[in-house]
Amino acid sequence: MLDLKWSPSEKAIARKAYNQAFEREMAGAIAKVKKKADEIKEPDDLWKLQEHLTKLRRQIDEKYDYRYSVLHTVFARLIYEGHLSEAELQGIGEDKMKYIRMCLALWREQD
Amino acid sequence: MLDLKWSPSEKAIARKAYNQAFEREMAGAIAKVKKKADEIKEPDDLWKLQEHLTKLRRQIDEKYDYRYSVLHTVFARLIYEGHLSEAELQGIGEDKMKYIRMCLALWREQD
Repeated sequence: MLDLKWSPSEKAIARKAYNQAFEREMAGAIAKVKKKADEIKEPDDLWKLQEHLTKLRRQIDEKYDYRYSVLHTVFARLIYEGHLSEAELQGIGEDKMKYIRMCLALWREQD
Repeated sequence: MLDLKWSPSEKAIARKAYNQAFEREMAGAIAKVKKKADEIKEPDDLWKLQEHLTKLRRQIDEKYDYRYSVLHTVFARLIYEGHLSEAELQGIGEDKMKYIRMCLALWREQD
């Protein structure tokens, strides 16, 4: 957890980027669920969809956490997973970007 | 719970009726889920589908219980809910049908 000060303009940029990442990820998730539903043939497929949705919901709930104290880790993960680009964070101070890049490097190291 | 003796031919009729009811109910459930998935527009719809599937799974798990000691209550419920007809149980002895009808009457009284 960090105690960085986010200025009003940084907060506006952060909120917009966060919402866009969420909308993008959810649009992809919705398309995937529609495809899975379309391919259901038997009861087992229905339960596989139930498991997929339950896991997805848990992941989304855990991932999207808009507290400024953890936002650098959230943005790093969203960039790592391809839901956000660094360019969309333009205007956010180097004091925050430094931590975002550090977290991003950790994610990439795991590959 | 009852301790009725089911003959081999009664068991065969019961198993077939049980499987048919299951297949029918699941075919309806699958069609409903496909329709719900097709209508998803936003994240909230996705979570509504998750809740629907989780509830459905719990209900199906609870309802389909092929133990001879409780089968009369299972058949009564399946008839009550329209997944099975009494005619499909033809060949099952009156000693069992009596209990199935008693349970069915209880379901109908709740209406």
